[in-house]
Amino acid sequence: MNFASDNAWGAHPAVLAALASCNEGAMMGYGADPVTARAESAIRELFQAPDAAVRFVATGTAANALVCAQLCPPYGRLYCHEDAHIQTSECGAPEFFTGGAKLVALAGEGGRLHPDALAEAIRRGAGGGLNGGRNGMVSITNATEWGTLYSPRQVAALAELAHGAGLALHMDGARFANAAAGLGCAPAELTWRAGVDVLCFGGTKNGAMAAEAVIFFDPARAEDFDYRRKQSGHVFSKQRFLAAQMLALVEDGLWLELGALANAKAARLAEGILAAQGALLQPVQSNAVFAAIPTDAHARLRAAGAIYHLWPDKSAEGLDPVPLRLVTAWNTPEDAVARFCELLAG
Amino acid sequence: MNFASDNAWGAHPAVLAALASCNEGAMMGYGADPVTARAESAIRELFQAPDAAVRFVATGTAANALVCAQLCPPYGRLYCHEDAHIQTSECGAPEFFTGGAKLVALAGEGGRLHPDALAEAIRRGAGGGLNGGRNGMVSITNATEWGTLYSPRQVAALAELAHGAGLALHMDGARFANAAAGLGCAPAELTWRAGVDVLCFGGTKNGAMAAEAVIFFDPARAEDFDYRRKQSGHVFSKQRFLAAQMLALVEDGLWLELGALANAKAARLAEGILAAQGALLQPVQSNAVFAAIPTDAHARLRAAGAIYHLWPDKSAEGLDPVPLRLVTAWNTPEDAVARFCELLAG
Amino acid sequence: MNFASDNAWGAHPAVLAALASCNEGAMMGYGADPVTARAESAIRELFQAPDAAVRFVATGTAANALVCAQLCPPYGRLYCHEDAHIQTSECGAPEFFTGGAKLVALAGEGGRLHPDALAEAIRRGAGGGLNGGRNGMVSITNATEWGTLYSPRQVAALAELAHGAGLALHMDGARFANAAAGLGCAPAELTWRAGVDVLCFGGTKNGAMAAEAVIFFDPARAEDFDYRRKQSGHVFSKQRFLAAQMLALVEDGLWLELGALANAKAARLAEGILAAQGALLQPVQSNAVFAAIPTDAHARLRAAGAIYHLWPDKSAEGLDPVPLRLVTAWNTPEDAVARFCELLAG
Amino acid sequence: MNFASDNAWGAHPAVLAALASCNEGAMMGYGADPVTARAESAIRELFQAPDAAVRFVATGTAANALVCAQLCPPYGRLYCHEDAHIQTSECGAPEFFTGGAKLVALAGEGGRLHPDALAEAIRRGAGGGLNGGRNGMVSITNATEWGTLYSPRQVAALAELAHGAGLALHMDGARFANAAAGLGCAPAELTWRAGVDVLCFGGTKNGAMAAEAVIFFDPARAEDFDYRRKQSGHVFSKQRFLAAQMLALVEDGLWLELGALANAKAARLAEGILAAQGALLQPVQSNAVFAAIPTDAHARLRAAGAIYHLWPDKSAEGLDPVPLRLVTAWNTPEDAVARFCELLAG
Repeated sequence: MNFASDNAWGAHPAVLAALASCNEGAMMGYGADPVTARAESAIRELFQAPDAAVRFVATGTAANALVCAQLCPPYGRLYCHEDAHIQTSECGAPEFFTGGAKLVALAGEGGRLHPDALAEAIRRGAGGGLNGGRNGMVSITNATEWGTLYSPRQVAALAELAHGAGLALHMDGARFANAAAGLGCAPAELTWRAGVDVLCFGGTKNGAMAAEAVIFFDPARAEDFDYRRKQSGHVFSKQRFLAAQMLALVEDGLWLELGALANAKAARLAEGILAAQGALLQPVQSNAVFAAIPTDAHARLRAAGAIYHLWPDKSAEGLDPVPLRLVTAWNTPEDAVARFCELLAG
Repeated sequence: MNFASDNAWGAHPAVLAALASCNEGAMMGYGADPVTARAESAIRELFQAPDAAVRFVATGTAANALVCAQLCPPYGRLYCHEDAHIQTSECGAPEFFTGGAKLVALAGEGGRLHPDALAEAIRRGAGGGLNGGRNGMVSITNATEWGTLYSPRQVAALAELAHGAGLALHMDGARFANAAAGLGCAPAELTWRAGVDVLCFGGTKNGAMAAEAVIFFDPARAEDFDYRRKQSGHVFSKQRFLAAQMLALVEDGLWLELGALANAKAARLAEGILAAQGALLQPVQSNAVFAAIPTDAHARLRAAGAIYHLWPDKSAEGLDPVPLRLVTAWNTPEDAVARFCELLAG
Repeated sequence: MNFASDNAWGAHPAVLAALASCNEGAMMGYGADPVTARAESAIRELFQAPDAAVRFVATGTAANALVCAQLCPPYGRLYCHEDAHIQTSECGAPEFFTGGAKLVALAGEGGRLHPDALAEAIRRGAGGGLNGGRNGMVSITNATEWGTLYSPRQVAALAELAHGAGLALHMDGARFANAAAGLGCAPAELTWRAGVDVLCFGGTKNGAMAAEAVIFFDPARAEDFDYRRKQSGHVFSKQRFLAAQMLALVEDGLWLELGALANAKAARLAEGILAAQGALLQPVQSNAVFAAIPTDAHARLRAAGAIYHLWPDKSAEGLDPVPLRLVTAWNTPEDAVARFCELLAG
Repeated sequence: MNFASDNAWGAHPAVLAALASCNEGAMMGYGADPVTARAESAIRELFQAPDAAVRFVATGTAANALVCAQLCPPYGRLYCHEDAHIQTSECGAPEFFTGGAKLVALAGEGGRLHPDALAEAIRRGAGGGLNGGRNGMVSITNATEWGTLYSPRQVAALAELAHGAGLALHMDGARFANAAAGLGCAPAELTWRAGVDVLCFGGTKNGAMAAEAVIFFDPARAEDFDYRRKQSGHVFSKQRFLAAQMLALVEDGLWLELGALANAKAARLAEGILAAQGALLQPVQSNAVFAAIPTDAHARLRAAGAIYHLWPDKSAEGLDPVPLRLVTAWNTPEDAVARFCELLAG
């Protein structure tokens, strides 16, 4: 019963198979290999974006922070939600990679930036002279850190504001598969058609070992990006092994299937929580469940070895009800979900 | 009637005289001159800190950001008030100089960090693993950006929390003279005796052309600081001219006299505002006045050429009453103050 | 006939098997997994360094640059060979990760730093005041970028100089296995017993997909290193897959066996070159061969599809004889080596 | 007899007078003052560059490093002479401000970059893929660190190479006045007409207290430069005092007069050295003299209190003849020059 994170689980067998299948023989390094070419091509096709520039890195923090450096100057203001991964969970990576950008963290219900808050922040940035830094970029996460989703229309509203101020819109898609599965809309619809300029398309939480794709829908925005990857140690010499992971996920729609599987398990947890008089702290729209459960249920679950994070942190221990976060993966065992619900029901 | 800022005014004649008095002849550069030695010595004496290491730079942003780099690692969490100058008005200088530190900006009444908020933030930082970065340092401003003051006791409460977590306490004293004059307490009492580890002792707003002293009460904390100054272009070859400015202010207590003069003018403005049915948005404890005045009074003042900032920015234009900030300097003309009050009274 | 680089080849089957063998089930992320613990332990044992701190990253550039940031301040002088990988081939990664360090690149025969050159550079650094930066650290590569080796005695001479000036000694061991195999000495003898403080122990070129271990022989030097890894995007959530690769190499001595295999192939190439009247530009001591071959032999080889780099770059095309670099891997096919030699002989 | 540096001397009386003359009253801060406007205008006129963007900072290191950050990306290769101030004497400031650029230091007679060396370096940079970083910018110093001069034609040859590769050309003009006086050519001829894109026009060594102007001949290159100044603490709130210094130098041709005065004194020293059988190590073309003098002359001079640097550093003590550097300023006393020559002659 491990609900700590979707990255607590291993890789999908197809990903491992893909590694083995491209292991033979010599290939040119650093991305000049046929596996990379195929993976790039498959992603462009998936996103109906024949001109997009696609790059691979191994971690989500690398993907996000490199994009921040690409889109935001050192003296820029980077607008994001106050609970954004780049703000709370990357140890200052955006500040480090950009060389000093100021993250301007905005409140917003359900982990989503609200257009009014963004508009006001951009207005202040524009009027602040040198002091506050220059308006730099906008970043959103979909699925959000609270498991909720931005619809294409909601993305478009933010994109319009960003573009109106000359700013690029980045989407942290560490759980993009869960978002796409949850919304039931095409990747293109949720990204470039809605105004997203750069997507970090997460593989790791979706079933890869360690692989993410950075997609620049306008390839001009990718200029010199490879130098940044190299300078930060994120160019793999044997890059075929990064690309192969993404290829395995993207080919034949595996990514979306896995995203839907994870979401379904979260939905089942949510049902169990409601049935047991627990409360959902956020609508459950993807593969994360934020809930508050009775103290005795919590005690039963812990006693039975259930693993999950109290939320926002351990200081929640002792509260009644107990706030917590549950995250499911495509391979979270069905019986772990069932057992969790049983224990919860008491 | 210029109340835009205390840095809108020139230098005290004693400061200019000091420049002229040390201009003759050759001296070794980069701080190895007798003027620097005398200024350092005078500051150590003023602060009753015979072991302190004293360094000179030309701007407050340089002083603060260099100290941040000295006290906080690139992956550190830097705790400050959400309205701190380092957070709102230095264009990301702390992020740039530290190489990526995360400013954790906390709310707090009157521009002051509250011990409970700091304690909670430090607790979260300590429990956040790698994600949120390591607890790094604490920075406060005295006088605050809202013109209010920390008493020695209030400083000590924050210092105790910082030190308890192994963090150094920095005081941005861009308006330290106004704080000391307002509180009527000795420099030592307000700094190292209360637990301040490093003070940026502002000269520019106090009557210098462009000079600040960085005071490390524990000289071990100044190790390698000169390399940072050099690498950021803040070592003056003819450093005598920086040191001379601070010397002129510190000798014979001029700094405190000028701080008191500025404060007195702010106090008079505050009286005038209250007399004219305006409201003070913050207690007036140093040389800044935050007030809301009737729209018609604002119109009369603007028509008469009064210069001041609406607060927090121009978007306040049209509000009734009009929120604004007035800042006084030692040499704000008495009649400008009087005229302001008259116009306000209508 | 691909002799472009040892990273042109895939992973050893044991490495792929190791990934599969740890794929099942949930494990805590970010290094708190049993595979990481076992890999760390195996490396400590291999190096007879029970107290060493071991960390895993995916690329050699990341390993080296992170160590530079750990050992050298932003204003430090980093002494290395002028052909060191960190100087020529990491796109400024050391400068970026350290936040501004100055690489002081020294000449030296065969890719090796000479003690006299290092001593002189350290002396200058010590006497240069603020201008040149502070003496920071020393970095050497073993096997070197020219395929030559430092003996333990040679390492010790440099370590003595570094330590005498208070500087740490880093060894870039991207091809450490080839060095150890070539010298026939124990890992401990070539590293901490000779004074190496931190080793980047390369897995990728040795037979991993993408894995390197950073070994801090004094664990105190590893303090906060994980924050740096995290801030630069080099902490893997599913770290088991990094650790498993290194574990597969280290267990049962596979690493050394593979290093010896690669070396043997380089030796055979060298014999073939000498037999064909080519010249060796450097002694062949590990798995790289720098040679000059007749123009017609070069033409024959290219026509037959042989892949290798002219040296130092393409501008060597047209020279007679043609200078080039050949690098072998454990799995460079025997017949490729044989065919190369035949074609060379004409 | 102080010949240590031209920055060992104070400011010209006209500079001090300029400070006093603009001290009265309130002015808007951060550059929005009339003194700044006048100084910018005077510099544009002097350089016959009506569209140039002019910015003021207090130190040469700040000027140079900020320009490097403006012209060279973090992953860029910055070509300069191996004895360039930015390479040897700024403590890694260019690396810090750019966020990681790689300084590629080239040999060249008399402190001057040679076009062939630059062409070769640019060619290598262009062909080096990601490893070596991207071609970034070119920087030269005039007068050079060896007191020699680039003629407009020599500058143009380098500019052509730089521009041909899409790189901007920066001139460090810490001693630009000495260069212009030595060459007898107009400022425009030596800069933008010869292809210089950005000039750091030094005031400090020319007679200011601490002031430099950065001149972007194409104002588009100055975009966002003020954010960089601000973020690095180099925007003065009372900027009138920076601008006034440069204005005093530029108005009425004082800068050129002072440059010529300093050069004349160096010329007299050179004559004295030759007369006394000393050797000039470089042609004396500006205000620096590199010479080797007999040991006994050196002893006499030291005994008489003469101050100068042995070259390249103290380790030259004991050599015979003794290599040294002498730098003159506009106000180096005539009798100090005469006395030096007398003592030298014995």
